[in-house]
Formats: sequence, C-alpha cells, structure tokens
Amino acid sequence: MQQQISVITLGIADLTQSRRFYVEGFGWKPVFENEQIIFYQMNGFVLGTFEKQALDEDMNRTNDTQLGSYALAHNVESREAVEKVMEQLIAAGGNLLRKADAPLHGGYRGYIADPDGHAWEVAWNPAWQIDENGLVTFSL
Amino acid sequence: MQQQISVITLGIADLTQSRRFYVEGFGWKPVFENEQIIFYQMNGFVLGTFEKQALDEDMNRTNDTQLGSYALAHNVESREAVEKVMEQLIAAGGNLLRKADAPLHGGYRGYIADPDGHAWEVAWNPAWQIDENGLVTFSL
Repeated sequence: MQQQISVITLGIADLTQSRRFYVEGFGWKPVFENEQIIFYQMNGFVLGTFEKQALDEDMNRTNDTQLGSYALAHNVESREAVEKVMEQLIAAGGNLLRKADAPLHGGYRGYIADPDGHAWEVAWNPAWQIDENGLVTFSL
Repeated sequence: MQQQISVITLGIADLTQSRRFYVEGFGWKPVFENEQIIFYQMNGFVLGTFEKQALDEDMNRTNDTQLGSYALAHNVESREAVEKVMEQLIAAGGNLLRKADAPLHGGYRGYIADPDGHAWEVAWNPAWQIDENGLVTFSL
C-alpha cells in the first residue's frame, strides 16, 4: 500500500477569513474554489479548506466525538524567514501560539493558529532536504 | 513562497496502539521511531505521531484553545479497495465514523477514526492522478 495522504481538509467557519490567511499570509494560490470549499495544490497532495459543518457531516463526526490534537508545519529556508512568515500570518488573521525559538533538536520554530484554530508550525530545519518542487525528505 | 507542508503531526495517547493502526492497518513503515515519536516518510512530506502532551507543550497549546475540525484522506485504486482498507484499519484499532458510500461529487469513500480520534477518509476518486511515488495532483 502506498505511504500516501491525498488530502488534508481543514474545517473552517468563514471562507473569506480563512482564504485571507492562506492567500495573503502564506502567499498560496487556490487551484479551485467555490462558495463552500477551496483547494490548494501542495507538494504531492492537496490542502482543502471546507465549511466545518459540511465537513463534519461528510465524515459523520458528531460533536461528542473525541478530537485529536495535531499540527501542520511549513518549513522555510532560514531562521530569519521564520520570523518573517510568522509576521505575515499574524497580519493575515493568524493568532500567535508560540513565539519562535530554538527547540532542543535544533533549528528554529514558532507556532501560529489559523483563524479556525488549526496550528501551523513555521520552521527552519537545516537537516531536512526540500527540493525545488517542495518535496520534503525526512532526515536526522 | 513554496506551497509546501513539511510535516503533519498527530497527537497520540499511546504509541503502541497508534503504531498498530498505521503499521498494521495501513501497512506503512516508520522511517524513525523512539519512545515519544514515530515518523513516516510520505508522498513529499512527513507524517509524525507524537505524544499528545509533548506536542501540546511544543506548540504551547492550552486546553481552552479552540480546536479545528479536520480530516486526512488516503486514496486507493478502486472502489473495492476502499472497503478492504477500511476493514484492515478497523482490525488494527480504528473506529468507524461513516460506512463507505458514493458522495455526490463521484467516487466512493468512508471514514475511520484512528485510536486518538484523527479522522481518515479512505477514498477512491478516479478523477485524481496519483503517480507511482504517491504524488497526488488535483483535478475536477
């Protein structure tokens, strides 16, 4: 079986507010959008932002189901770029969770929540290879 | 800026239980593991399963912070494979959220929650191209 994730879908309350975070904050371009959903073509998979109620209905998830804790990471090319991207994300409606600092395992990173509470780590990790198409390879 | 996500990190309560879901259920192989975290090399990014408390501390997320709703999708090559993978995931500790059926936009899909409540859509979507390396391209 392929070690493959095809889509990450984030449930959102307000498409305009969410779009601003991803389009103005990260500078990403939608590949498709309508009144309910926006898709972004990512590095080997698709990111979707979808009305929360429609997503919950689609997955038949009721409010009393346990919700997992999770984070998404976007890696950048330098320590300075971490601060810059975090500033852009806050200016585009994101909320600071953790100011950037150096974790024990090396590199530099901070966390921002998007307008719907989805956590984004913005990280500089010199050990990880990211090719020109954004494909990321694990390394110690 | 690259349209790039480097890592998806899922917070988990019990590493052994979670490992069983991903290794036996999906049949995926870890690229790294220790007592606190397991990494899987995916299609152009990395999936991490990390002790929930350590993840929450890392992102400075407190319990009262709003948690977003979200789902991850794994696409398979046929309608029959959807049922088969869902059965494997349930046998490996997953919980059924939605039995597989055909959504309005075509294809076939169901939803399983992993042992920590992370929702996985198992989908057959004949419109989407997935190459031999598992790289997924959006298409209508």
